[in-house]
Amino acid sequence: MRQVAVIGVGQTPISEHWDKSIRELAGESIVVAMQDAGIAHADGLFVGNMLSGSLARQENLGALISDWIGLKHAEAVKVEAACGSGAAALRAGLIAVASGEMESAVVVGVEKMTDARPADVTAALATAADADYESAQGLSFVAINAMIMRRYMHAYGWKHSDFAPFSINAHANAVHNPIARLPFKISEAEYRDARMVAEPINLLDAAPIGDGAAALVLVPYDRMKRIHSNGRAGVAIIASASATDKLAVHDRRDPTWLEAAHQSARRAYSQAGLGPQHIDFFELHDAFSIMSVLSLEASGFAECGQGPRLGLDGHILPTGRIPITTMGGLKARGHPVGATGAYQIAETVLQLRGEAGQNQIDNARIAMAQSIGGSGATVITHILARR
Amino acid sequence: MRQVAVIGVGQTPISEHWDKSIRELAGESIVVAMQDAGIAHADGLFVGNMLSGSLARQENLGALISDWIGLKHAEAVKVEAACGSGAAALRAGLIAVASGEMESAVVVGVEKMTDARPADVTAALATAADADYESAQGLSFVAINAMIMRRYMHAYGWKHSDFAPFSINAHANAVHNPIARLPFKISEAEYRDARMVAEPINLLDAAPIGDGAAALVLVPYDRMKRIHSNGRAGVAIIASASATDKLAVHDRRDPTWLEAAHQSARRAYSQAGLGPQHIDFFELHDAFSIMSVLSLEASGFAECGQGPRLGLDGHILPTGRIPITTMGGLKARGHPVGATGAYQIAETVLQLRGEAGQNQIDNARIAMAQSIGGSGATVITHILARR
Repeated sequence: MRQVAVIGVGQTPISEHWDKSIRELAGESIVVAMQDAGIAHADGLFVGNMLSGSLARQENLGALISDWIGLKHAEAVKVEAACGSGAAALRAGLIAVASGEMESAVVVGVEKMTDARPADVTAALATAADADYESAQGLSFVAINAMIMRRYMHAYGWKHSDFAPFSINAHANAVHNPIARLPFKISEAEYRDARMVAEPINLLDAAPIGDGAAALVLVPYDRMKRIHSNGRAGVAIIASASATDKLAVHDRRDPTWLEAAHQSARRAYSQAGLGPQHIDFFELHDAFSIMSVLSLEASGFAECGQGPRLGLDGHILPTGRIPITTMGGLKARGHPVGATGAYQIAETVLQLRGEAGQNQIDNARIAMAQSIGGSGATVITHILARR
Repeated sequence: MRQVAVIGVGQTPISEHWDKSIRELAGESIVVAMQDAGIAHADGLFVGNMLSGSLARQENLGALISDWIGLKHAEAVKVEAACGSGAAALRAGLIAVASGEMESAVVVGVEKMTDARPADVTAALATAADADYESAQGLSFVAINAMIMRRYMHAYGWKHSDFAPFSINAHANAVHNPIARLPFKISEAEYRDARMVAEPINLLDAAPIGDGAAALVLVPYDRMKRIHSNGRAGVAIIASASATDKLAVHDRRDPTWLEAAHQSARRAYSQAGLGPQHIDFFELHDAFSIMSVLSLEASGFAECGQGPRLGLDGHILPTGRIPITTMGGLKARGHPVGATGAYQIAETVLQLRGEAGQNQIDNARIAMAQSIGGSGATVITHILARR
């Protein structure tokens, strides 16, 4: 299949957009992305979204949004993989363009969560877990992650404070991200003393929900070179892989090992002909600090049980060996669940183009982004390269 | 791209499966489809589903079902396009296999609707329409279709009884379909006197909801020839196209014309190098009798405003010029919404193989299936051929 470029990106601020509907949020990001791309039409639209049916009583987002943005009679569909929906939509759009089925595609991740009642949001987020064997027992999504973190701390002997660098780094990186939800620094003391949510996960271990949309425009790489002949850096998707694991954590052999992340990263490395040592920065899915650790381990950046060491030794910082959450991550940029995967890619593209402002990673040429749906059940990994 | 064959199909009865969960229903149909296909593994799983988040509090169906059926760590995702979700999932799986991204894929449409409260189901179905401008005004999904039917009757001078043949034909065809929800004949008098739902749509104009799952196994056509070297008829997908229209009916230029169906069918004909005159039978989306009429017109089988004539003149019967709903259609086979598109393809394959029993259409070689998400907003058309 032919190589595909991300030729345009657009992001709305992640906030409480009570004055904007789903179509308006999505449309806002798509208009920016298409202007960025320099094209006025796309053959297809792929919407990543998890909760619109539950929280906004709206399905059929493909038709809703393609009409709103003026893609008259275009093909359009929604793709769902819980919190990995945005990345899953990208993968669907990527295959459509890479295969020649389409000459261009818009991918948009969109989620609107903050004008529903908090209890309804918590219940809706629990649909990412196993409804029959987890949620039905009263487990919220954060509770499931708390049990994983507790088990991990027990198995490998880490203290809660050992996870602080992940949250501190994410918040520091969000400060200069104009669309971030929580653009402020936090201290180690603030991390330690934050309000408990589900022990051992406190408020500063957990990513905030939000409303937002991020859009990506995909074209074949050769076409991008013709459109952007002005010398702007091109960004190609050089690997894309998705894998699943048992949905219920108790069914997995080891609850502290993300096999789906491992499989997904392994396949992506194989497609790209690269390994973790070639990745200049890694936009991972830090819905909870424990997920940063497990994602790093499963993707080959740390030995099993040694992920916290990357934080404690400063390797995850913008100047470190493997910078992560370079624009704030889920933790501080924010986590509008079905949109998050698209935000991760938008940030990756900005970094690879050298347009990340004060957050710019030096000499960023190859980047990985990974999205997780459920507590490790669906994992989608993309590798992008500056060309 | 390479041609793709549907090598296996499986269907559960459409019924009230209060004793089976979503994963069990889906798994049941997939096991049958994989046995039918004669293969034990698939590279990916594409789930068509609309309502699991709202009615079963379960998203992330890709991971849920791929684990359940033993597709260890396979790629899996859910695709949603309201009542067209099953067909949209097929199209996603088709592109993945046709492009070479996968060597095999399982597509499953699954929906579980009958153990939720009826008011919740009505509200959930309304998410197929425009939540801000239709549902919020109190319009149920059937009410929207009722207004379309009323307008159509007014514009073209048809009486309610002129639509009777669509329902009567569907019910007659369901009698010998072992998985049908309503396998009994109805008379013209029963049609006329049926309880009103939303005038002019009565109970026998409207398809029944239900629980069910249908699965399809896709492989490259060349591989099918090697697996099924025993001479069983092969079925290839020779066209696939999806198009959208404005979600809210009041935004369309003409509420009685399905432009998305027209665009989708036109693209499919163009891909196949065929026209409506080449189609031996047509599995259309008769969620309401008016939708049969509009689908036939938009797909080129009748002039605008003349669709009911095909029913009155017997052309839609199994022995007619363009047989439709040959196994009962949505009306009598049943309409588990997100699963329906997969049922339509399963039936199409059985007909093309000559395995449709007493419902067999003579000399069926080329068939079309069309699924509609929303009241004409998302339309997906497939053309399949016996080889």
